[in-house]
Amino acid sequence: MSAPDLTSLIDSLPPGMVITDRDILGAYRFDRANDPDAGTPLALVRPLTTDHVQTAVRWCASAGIPIVTRGAGTSLSGGSTAVDGALMISTEKMRRLTIDTATRTAVSQPGMLNAEVKAAAADRGLWYPPDPSSFEICSIGGNVATNAGGLCCVKYGVTTDYVLGLEVVLADGRALRIGGKQLKDSAGLPLTKLFVGSEGLLGIVTEVTLRLLPPQAPACTVVGSFPSVRAASEAVLAVTSQIRPAMLEFMDSVSINAVEDMLKMGLDRDAGALLVAQSDAPGPAGEAEVALIEQAFASCGAGEVFSTSDPVESEAFTAARRAAIPAVEKIGALLLEDVGVPLPSLPDLIDGVAAIAAENDVLISVIAHAGDGNTHPLIVHDPTDADETARANRAFGQIMDLAISLGGTITGEHGVGRLKKGWLRDQVGDDVMDLMSLIKTAVDPQGLLNPGVMF
Amino acid sequence: MSAPDLTSLIDSLPPGMVITDRDILGAYRFDRANDPDAGTPLALVRPLTTDHVQTAVRWCASAGIPIVTRGAGTSLSGGSTAVDGALMISTEKMRRLTIDTATRTAVSQPGMLNAEVKAAAADRGLWYPPDPSSFEICSIGGNVATNAGGLCCVKYGVTTDYVLGLEVVLADGRALRIGGKQLKDSAGLPLTKLFVGSEGLLGIVTEVTLRLLPPQAPACTVVGSFPSVRAASEAVLAVTSQIRPAMLEFMDSVSINAVEDMLKMGLDRDAGALLVAQSDAPGPAGEAEVALIEQAFASCGAGEVFSTSDPVESEAFTAARRAAIPAVEKIGALLLEDVGVPLPSLPDLIDGVAAIAAENDVLISVIAHAGDGNTHPLIVHDPTDADETARANRAFGQIMDLAISLGGTITGEHGVGRLKKGWLRDQVGDDVMDLMSLIKTAVDPQGLLNPGVMF
Repeated sequence: MSAPDLTSLIDSLPPGMVITDRDILGAYRFDRANDPDAGTPLALVRPLTTDHVQTAVRWCASAGIPIVTRGAGTSLSGGSTAVDGALMISTEKMRRLTIDTATRTAVSQPGMLNAEVKAAAADRGLWYPPDPSSFEICSIGGNVATNAGGLCCVKYGVTTDYVLGLEVVLADGRALRIGGKQLKDSAGLPLTKLFVGSEGLLGIVTEVTLRLLPPQAPACTVVGSFPSVRAASEAVLAVTSQIRPAMLEFMDSVSINAVEDMLKMGLDRDAGALLVAQSDAPGPAGEAEVALIEQAFASCGAGEVFSTSDPVESEAFTAARRAAIPAVEKIGALLLEDVGVPLPSLPDLIDGVAAIAAENDVLISVIAHAGDGNTHPLIVHDPTDADETARANRAFGQIMDLAISLGGTITGEHGVGRLKKGWLRDQVGDDVMDLMSLIKTAVDPQGLLNPGVMF
Repeated sequence: MSAPDLTSLIDSLPPGMVITDRDILGAYRFDRANDPDAGTPLALVRPLTTDHVQTAVRWCASAGIPIVTRGAGTSLSGGSTAVDGALMISTEKMRRLTIDTATRTAVSQPGMLNAEVKAAAADRGLWYPPDPSSFEICSIGGNVATNAGGLCCVKYGVTTDYVLGLEVVLADGRALRIGGKQLKDSAGLPLTKLFVGSEGLLGIVTEVTLRLLPPQAPACTVVGSFPSVRAASEAVLAVTSQIRPAMLEFMDSVSINAVEDMLKMGLDRDAGALLVAQSDAPGPAGEAEVALIEQAFASCGAGEVFSTSDPVESEAFTAARRAAIPAVEKIGALLLEDVGVPLPSLPDLIDGVAAIAAENDVLISVIAHAGDGNTHPLIVHDPTDADETARANRAFGQIMDLAISLGGTITGEHGVGRLKKGWLRDQVGDDVMDLMSLIKTAVDPQGLLNPGVMF
């Protein structure tokens, strides 16, 4: 098949907006999942406006060309990996953002980074809570596509809890506004909620209206060193059965040592696991929560428990947890898991991952948004070692099988993308797959949007 | 057309489960919207299990018989009004409920009342927040269908924020499980969120998994009497621009006097409007919030500001607000509105409703979940007076037109039902209506589920 003629697309968009330079296209093949099967885009479009997106989508619809939409390219499950012959639409230049203090909302184009939305809100005395570990490099559009979570969502919820309205461009090029600045809206089918987490399969998000909160109260941080991952995961349950902490993060010894190698901040290298918890309850209530966390940690065998209300120290421990993925990545390439289970099954999940690591003779480091039951086993491997890569891939699948067997999910916050679609049916079953497929086909009958994701 | 033969349906369900007695059917014609155009069910089925629901739905699917699903029949927008020739499936006998303290979830069949779920959670030291004013008589299934709100949702969110998983029976009789007890789940299209608020158009909810919270801290209540509705609505903005109260309710003078007539609790009969606010922040933070609310009320002209931390007194004021609808209903029949606007437009909405009342020479009492911008104008009329009823109906439509013109919604928490469908297109536009219709048709191609609602 000959390559499609791009002339009419190029002519209908501003000069330079359609890019076919092979070197530039090469930089848009991979996302952070580093899928070796990534394709090469037919061309790249970097729109500034909704109108540009509509023009590109209409051209694709009339020519039957598939589309991959890309935010900041930080997907860990291959949601924005390039597909041969597909147009890549990158939202990176769609960067208009307004903060409305009267309605306490942010209206953002999708290319703004999460950290930029947070900062703009903070400048006006407001707070946008969702905080993926990648918040400094991931885009709001991608956060909406994956229903991204983060560290504070154990108390403050995930992206969908903050999306009040969307503008989306459908597969036929029509732009729709759904929801808005009103805080409650039961008018019609809940389309806003349907689009958040739909991984670009139903439309391209061109504007997001986000709910903002009053600023978070200063948090106290409690750090506990545990002799084993089992002890730490039991401490998680001891905390969550009594209070709702503002953060409750888990690191195993591999990630502790990797972070310590990188940051040299004095973490306990001999610990089997570390928990980092926060309370942002004000005054005596916060003191009571901190005391409760300290006691829960101690009663589950923590060797050392350190508490601080100093914001710089608190941020250092939070940053240590956020640094875990890049730190472990220095040991080797990662297959990054995102499995979640109902909280009481967390110890079984973590034990099971250790057994899978042993069985396959691969190093797996586990970090977790433990208070949510959402874990990120990091499978370390050398991609040039075919045998180890095969064992890593086998472990990757076995971890998802384990999560499913424990009543959990193959993805808590990263999305299914292209890497996990082989397990989605195992989790949800044939009938749910059918229903998802019916909806996808109804909304995108040509199947142009983000092909290869989820289905 | 002759009536369908019910024999095979009767034979396939337990004895007595299919009811055709005209007197009993008569009690299932209306919901709390009292639609004079209500039909009469073909028959009534009161299933106990998901299997019973599937049997009934399969029978309907094969015979092409439409279905109206009814929870407790408290819809205020005609969502469960009977349709001539349609099978009525009442979930009132589906009343299995378990509380799981380990995962902090409730798993409930749809027929449990909201208050029963709350009570069962409280018995185990947990809290189910959503609290529609009708919480003592409305069902969880209906709450899910409408994405019901309530008084505490200004701080704690609405039903969708608490639904982790669902079992639904589709229009072809298949039963699906979506979501589950895991707190975060990005696996596949967000179907759980699509079903919450879909008003029975996509399936019949047969089981709900609800997230529970640790118990709410004791709340302090602040009550302010204002000379005018304008002063009170400005006080709302003065509060919400600074803090996120746990409750912020509005009553106008008609509702104040109607409640006082009924409850005789000493409300200020001369007030133009009353605000009832709560803070449940603990300790000094709560004291600071109460002081801030008191100051905001005073600076906006409140004549009297009363604060209490006594739980009995607090509950009396909350109960007064909840009693407003039944109290105003003693004056006459109500057309009950549910319009919402972005918060800064709240004063314009309330002023505009007064103008509409004057123009149409009808009494309209306004109560509101003011902190959400969600108002319930209550249009009082005598249904035996054709001219007044016509004026009331005109006002009903004009209020929705007003909300739409202010960038708001025709329904914040009651749903579109059969009463408001004429305005849905005006709010969302042709393209959004098309998209909703595409999804409805994909999921329920025969259009059997809750015909006449929304479309």
